[in-house]
Amino acid sequence: MNDFESIVAELTETLASTGAASVLRDSEALIKYQRDMGALEDPHLPLAVVLAESVSDVQNTLRWASKHRISVVPRGAGTGVSGAAHAIECCMVLSLELMNRIIEVRPDDEIAVVEPGVVNADLNAAVAQYGLMYAPDPASYQQSTIGGNVSTNAGGLRCAKYGVTRDSVLGLTVVMADGTIIETGKQTFKGVAGYDLTSLVIGSEGTLGIVVSATVRLRYLSKNQRAIAAIFPDIETAAQGVLEIGRARIQPAILELLDDGVMAVIDSIHGTQLQGTGGALLLALTDGFGALLEEQAIRDQLSKLGATLFEPDDPQAMKLLEMRRVSRGDEQDDVYRVGEDVAVPRSKLVDYVHELRLIAERHKVWVRTVAHAGDGNLHPTFWIDPAEGEAGLTRLERALDDSIRSALAIGGTITGEHGVGQYKLRWLGWEQSEQVRELQYKIKEVFDPQGILNPGKAI
Amino acid sequence: MNDFESIVAELTETLASTGAASVLRDSEALIKYQRDMGALEDPHLPLAVVLAESVSDVQNTLRWASKHRISVVPRGAGTGVSGAAHAIECCMVLSLELMNRIIEVRPDDEIAVVEPGVVNADLNAAVAQYGLMYAPDPASYQQSTIGGNVSTNAGGLRCAKYGVTRDSVLGLTVVMADGTIIETGKQTFKGVAGYDLTSLVIGSEGTLGIVVSATVRLRYLSKNQRAIAAIFPDIETAAQGVLEIGRARIQPAILELLDDGVMAVIDSIHGTQLQGTGGALLLALTDGFGALLEEQAIRDQLSKLGATLFEPDDPQAMKLLEMRRVSRGDEQDDVYRVGEDVAVPRSKLVDYVHELRLIAERHKVWVRTVAHAGDGNLHPTFWIDPAEGEAGLTRLERALDDSIRSALAIGGTITGEHGVGQYKLRWLGWEQSEQVRELQYKIKEVFDPQGILNPGKAI
Repeated sequence: MNDFESIVAELTETLASTGAASVLRDSEALIKYQRDMGALEDPHLPLAVVLAESVSDVQNTLRWASKHRISVVPRGAGTGVSGAAHAIECCMVLSLELMNRIIEVRPDDEIAVVEPGVVNADLNAAVAQYGLMYAPDPASYQQSTIGGNVSTNAGGLRCAKYGVTRDSVLGLTVVMADGTIIETGKQTFKGVAGYDLTSLVIGSEGTLGIVVSATVRLRYLSKNQRAIAAIFPDIETAAQGVLEIGRARIQPAILELLDDGVMAVIDSIHGTQLQGTGGALLLALTDGFGALLEEQAIRDQLSKLGATLFEPDDPQAMKLLEMRRVSRGDEQDDVYRVGEDVAVPRSKLVDYVHELRLIAERHKVWVRTVAHAGDGNLHPTFWIDPAEGEAGLTRLERALDDSIRSALAIGGTITGEHGVGQYKLRWLGWEQSEQVRELQYKIKEVFDPQGILNPGKAI
Repeated sequence: MNDFESIVAELTETLASTGAASVLRDSEALIKYQRDMGALEDPHLPLAVVLAESVSDVQNTLRWASKHRISVVPRGAGTGVSGAAHAIECCMVLSLELMNRIIEVRPDDEIAVVEPGVVNADLNAAVAQYGLMYAPDPASYQQSTIGGNVSTNAGGLRCAKYGVTRDSVLGLTVVMADGTIIETGKQTFKGVAGYDLTSLVIGSEGTLGIVVSATVRLRYLSKNQRAIAAIFPDIETAAQGVLEIGRARIQPAILELLDDGVMAVIDSIHGTQLQGTGGALLLALTDGFGALLEEQAIRDQLSKLGATLFEPDDPQAMKLLEMRRVSRGDEQDDVYRVGEDVAVPRSKLVDYVHELRLIAERHKVWVRTVAHAGDGNLHPTFWIDPAEGEAGLTRLERALDDSIRSALAIGGTITGEHGVGQYKLRWLGWEQSEQVRELQYKIKEVFDPQGILNPGKAI
């Protein structure tokens, strides 16, 4: 460790001479920056934490890390749920949270240029005055940063209509492992010059480079928003409702499916009384010039299935959407309670939600499910009573494995929007062939020959 | 050439024993498959043409090409306009046009799985019965193939609202340079497992692998489509109209801008009488549940600017959109007439269309411009009288260079949707840094270590 003392001293000196970054070494900081909100299986404290305040801080940190071959774990707000920001052995955590300037908003171009530490909700607040929004809205939008959203290709509720983070990012400025800077992509809506390095970096969880600015496309913030809430006797019929909305070729901005377990959670947090009203809740939002007509068309479809609909102007429907929106944001998974993130082809929703219940029964674990149903993206949470200890954990693992296997068997994916991180690496080989994984390792090597950027994550 | 005779004989034998592909060697075929519709500066005949009929035909061809280090130029319908499918020295052309099966349409999942040779319009015809469409619609949609569209990340008219090819492709099956097969992406709307190899291959113009099937996302084909046609006194005011529609936060499905030169072309092809009615034509299409309201809102904006609007239900407006749609499809550029494809930030549209006129005046060349204005993507066509010969060509080159420089200077790109191909390689270094280009070469090397896949294109 003495060696490391002098190495860190070198970093601290460099940063002090050219930048404003702090280097934290106290144990409180090390513990705070040790993890994100994903389940933590192999805890390590970082050697130190750099709070970068500028691009040159990031460059200096990476030059230093390259020189000494020290692993760098980049971090936004630490709200990820797959462990992509978990510290690993002998690593430095590089926090981008203080690089939080909105560099530019260009309302006529419908784009914004932001530093990675800008909180998603802050960007949305800044552009609302122009009738614009940044569409991707993960449940953590009040805390999570654009840089973190980019690194995980975050989804959210509105991507039913507006797509995921990748669909809203036009270009990136990236600091490479050796401290040099590249610009990817463009400032225009369309552009096909060269390979799509922007999409390659998005979702790569900091394993290819450190995003120090993003040019994002903004969408129109509709003044016409109509919320629809429908209670169904069971989740299978509610999932059928999702299909019927699709069959009627109606595109809501948001379409969320909550089972009775999640209804109970919302009751416990917000004091509502959903439990006992039915087996599942379907929430939709329509927007834009067609909002009213789409609302009516959705209501027609759901009524036919026997749903109990909230009245058209009942403010409770919009409130429920807001409650749903934040219903995962402040939870932290642990080994006894794991939130999943599979996605399946839409037609398989009904079968899959049914299958999840069977899996839970089979392994005697609990499950509750909320889904971005418009996208076929489900978040089942499996849990056991921690008092059960090891025996329970084994059953929990088996249930998780089965839920993943079942999703893959019907053409699904192990992760719809949370990312592989550290936690889901065990399943990546179930989805991707050896050859695809090998390609990814080689691409990683092109960007980061020494392998110092967030090793052991994403691929 | 005797060596080559025996090498081709080997390919012909292999293909005959395991597949159905034809190997064409007659001079008529070699001439037909020598080029796409881009300007051709360095003509070569291919050594032979393979018409693949199956995945194993493609695999066998690539195994053979790898073994003998023969370059392979993949080709769809040959409608590209950047020369990505131009033959190069000592190459084999691999045509995918006969692999034209729609493998699967899954209406409830809103996806289709297609072979690369499926013609864009045929896919649209096949899914219309389900109320679905494949959104990307390049002007060549009646001839061009999904494989070609994927390879160039083709755009079109509807991408104003629905995005480009990359936004509609979920996953790919790709034959690698060595003949092995990988699957990229997913069958679900969302999915973030590993790096985005799908986006990397899309737009790579066959330099990374040969796409042998694509899983595409379908969108809702609206029964409510409202066309708007507006004549403006000059193109600058029409471009201002585009901005005003954006400022009113209205999202048309299509928004096309045509100057008087293009109006004259439409007159000459279709017998319309647009010329003399004004200096520019703006065409819009609204769709979906909000179509009528959006139509009214757009009409309001354009009226304020003094546009002469066609009556709301005048069928001529929709006809004009169709005429525009095919107004480039059957043209072939040559050295005396070059169609460009820049994109600029939307707010710069007015300035840039004005700049194009100044450039043409300065270099004494002709220019006419049509633009996917909703995306800021312009297609100015510069030309001279071929009788002028070399002297004219020099002025034409200078005008082209200036138009590219001006676009880059205001944050634009050298290619919005046509791709770099062979023709635009000269400008790629103006847009991308050496380091970015180096990264791309290294990625290419990961996929194709021998460099046999369409060398000298795209990057």
